[in-house]
Amino acid sequence: MSPSEWSLSSRLEQDTISIGDLPLSRVLVIKDAHYPWLLLVPRRPDVSEIIDLDEVAQAQLMTEIARVSRALKEVTKCDKLNVAALGNLVPQLHIHIIARRSSDVAWPRPVWGVMPPLAHDPEEVQQFINLLRRKIWLS
Amino acid sequence: MSPSEWSLSSRLEQDTISIGDLPLSRVLVIKDAHYPWLLLVPRRPDVSEIIDLDEVAQAQLMTEIARVSRALKEVTKCDKLNVAALGNLVPQLHIHIIARRSSDVAWPRPVWGVMPPLAHDPEEVQQFINLLRRKIWLS
Repeated sequence: MSPSEWSLSSRLEQDTISIGDLPLSRVLVIKDAHYPWLLLVPRRPDVSEIIDLDEVAQAQLMTEIARVSRALKEVTKCDKLNVAALGNLVPQLHIHIIARRSSDVAWPRPVWGVMPPLAHDPEEVQQFINLLRRKIWLS
Repeated sequence: MSPSEWSLSSRLEQDTISIGDLPLSRVLVIKDAHYPWLLLVPRRPDVSEIIDLDEVAQAQLMTEIARVSRALKEVTKCDKLNVAALGNLVPQLHIHIIARRSSDVAWPRPVWGVMPPLAHDPEEVQQFINLLRRKIWLS
């Protein structure tokens, strides 16, 4: 594989379930049942900041953030969305899109570092993924 | 004032110094010397999520995030940018753009809730604001 070819970082691969690709980004579900928690990972090599993307890709990223945010909000009926590009530990650019409820274990704090991940019920997460796929790709 | 007119939330007003307006957003510095920490607040009433903005404003927001991020990175020579729309406590949509260093007090964690804010040295923050203003509005 050429060094400029994109691949998902092994840390993100391990912590997520892929649900499909938008024109720019892979859409992933974080393996943590505490929160409905998605990632968008632009399929561009060697990118760690939003400003490492060219302007066309930045605009496409915003379009995909909005599309996935709307779908996540409709599926979860959440109280708030949290959207963040942090990447202090995993440098590959990835955008967190998290459905927050005022009853969740971390509320009102940000979710990072509050609780160890909780394993999903396999049927529940599959149902969540099916609903999301329909909203993101068909709506 | 009509209820649909925009104004900065009192909590954000209290915690920040305004450095100017871009076409969509007010640019603010958070009063915390632990990190070079900016906010973008779209001047649109009744908006708490990115997806509450129309598509034109969403695209403009991405343009302004990129412009301010580039300026902040150039001025601070930081190791990483953190960009986030959370808003669990202050519902008015505001985008955090934070310059992170691997030597800062919260690294590698996100900054929220780690340390109480540290007062700025007035001369230092003014110098930082002057440099930023030049980069954001003149570059």
